[in-house]
Amino acid sequence: MENEFANAPARSDKTTLADAPIGVFDSGLGGLTVAREIMRNLPGERIVYFGDTARVPYGNKSKQTIVRYSRQIVRFLKTQGIKAIVIACNTASALAIDEVAAEAGMPVIGVVEPGARVAAKVTRNKNIGVIGTKATVQTGAYIRAIHAIDPDINIIGQACPILVPLVEEGWTHDRITDEILMRYLDDLLEHGVDTIILGCTHYPLLRNAIRRLVGPDVSLVNPAYETALELERMLGQKGLVNTSPIEKDAPYPYKFYVSDDPVRFTEFANSILPVDVKKAKIVAIEEY
Amino acid sequence: MENEFANAPARSDKTTLADAPIGVFDSGLGGLTVAREIMRNLPGERIVYFGDTARVPYGNKSKQTIVRYSRQIVRFLKTQGIKAIVIACNTASALAIDEVAAEAGMPVIGVVEPGARVAAKVTRNKNIGVIGTKATVQTGAYIRAIHAIDPDINIIGQACPILVPLVEEGWTHDRITDEILMRYLDDLLEHGVDTIILGCTHYPLLRNAIRRLVGPDVSLVNPAYETALELERMLGQKGLVNTSPIEKDAPYPYKFYVSDDPVRFTEFANSILPVDVKKAKIVAIEEY
Repeated sequence: MENEFANAPARSDKTTLADAPIGVFDSGLGGLTVAREIMRNLPGERIVYFGDTARVPYGNKSKQTIVRYSRQIVRFLKTQGIKAIVIACNTASALAIDEVAAEAGMPVIGVVEPGARVAAKVTRNKNIGVIGTKATVQTGAYIRAIHAIDPDINIIGQACPILVPLVEEGWTHDRITDEILMRYLDDLLEHGVDTIILGCTHYPLLRNAIRRLVGPDVSLVNPAYETALELERMLGQKGLVNTSPIEKDAPYPYKFYVSDDPVRFTEFANSILPVDVKKAKIVAIEEY
Repeated sequence: MENEFANAPARSDKTTLADAPIGVFDSGLGGLTVAREIMRNLPGERIVYFGDTARVPYGNKSKQTIVRYSRQIVRFLKTQGIKAIVIACNTASALAIDEVAAEAGMPVIGVVEPGARVAAKVTRNKNIGVIGTKATVQTGAYIRAIHAIDPDINIIGQACPILVPLVEEGWTHDRITDEILMRYLDDLLEHGVDTIILGCTHYPLLRNAIRRLVGPDVSLVNPAYETALELERMLGQKGLVNTSPIEKDAPYPYKFYVSDDPVRFTEFANSILPVDVKKAKIVAIEEY
């Protein structure tokens, strides 16, 4: 697979590692909420996004399978001349970050640690709820990450398998979705949580509904947003911030790859991203 | 992969092709409703079931991907010394039956044709509704199969992407599921359908709820049941009926393989099958 960025015209006098794109991957569409926050917070950065739409969802799969899939994706992203990797999927962050970091040979950021750090900071009563896929909740990754900061914090996990299909059906402002959300959130609220981590990349798209249901006193932590901030800090520390502006006639700074169904992906991407997305390209990810 | 049946003790004086098992495959758990009907209607038949739990669901994937996955599964099933293949997945039946038949070199039955045939027979007002995954509905496979029998029949498709997650969450008797079902079924009922095809293998598990909502005058066609009857006819015609009884001390007549998470699969299988299911085994299906 060629490196499309390597063939692009030089954007400044000297092309450095800092000019290289950031690799972002997810099990499918949801990670676009992370890409969105990176675009907003780091408008100078190029992005190569991979969505594993052929094998989505990851949330009900085993660690072994998710590690294998994540490794294949890292091998593909490395062909794109990237400078860092963001795992924009809670399940893959929870289950495969160590293996991805070992494979990558470059800085790797997942969504779990930044989300955990902010939740530990904002909770006042030390009662945090985490909603996510079965795999994310069962692995206890958020619990470990929060307890590493403050072992006295009480964390309650709630798997919410119906929420991703509801978002993908487009029922984000819907009475039925509200009812299902209340069923999932009731237990957390009864336990008196004052902070809820939106532990799946689809859930920020339900943020308004969740806010309405839980009221103004519960903090909602969006790991996608926190991850973009963490990425900004890390790039700064390592001298990897892209300082060459994206010029008007420069090649489009965002590339999108998927393992299946680029049409549906492109539609969804255009519905949530602040930029026009050209058609995503298909990658035979099993061959990596 | 060894053929476990070939190593089993002979069940009669002469082991013939008729004694061989039937290969049944699905994208995951849903095809167990087809296996259940085969077990009930053909108690003398051995079954090798493969559920592609690592890559489930198929319903939102492209034809190209589903054909590739189906071919890998057929190559695996053929290592098991089978005599026929049942595609127990509406999406794979709709999108890949020709390719599977070409690869198999043995009789292949999908669930679409048997379901279409019965629906065409039972409709009185020639208005049929089909509910299924996006892929199944978009492909128009049921429309083509019904029109081949009677081009005057009017068919209305309705994709119902939330139903599979609801069944897998166990909410089969639930007010929320009833509400979602009504939203999906309303349009079909307004069009005056008198017959509805349950065009996804999970849906028979919602049959009671659907029956209650549509009333007694709408015929519900379960392709799983019709497929078992079709299989019985086909085996009879080709002299492939297994006439050697399953003896008490014979090896367990049903084998279950999955591509991921055998524990969850085995739990689900035990909740819907009339037999005790031993732990399913994992197959590295990408290697076939």
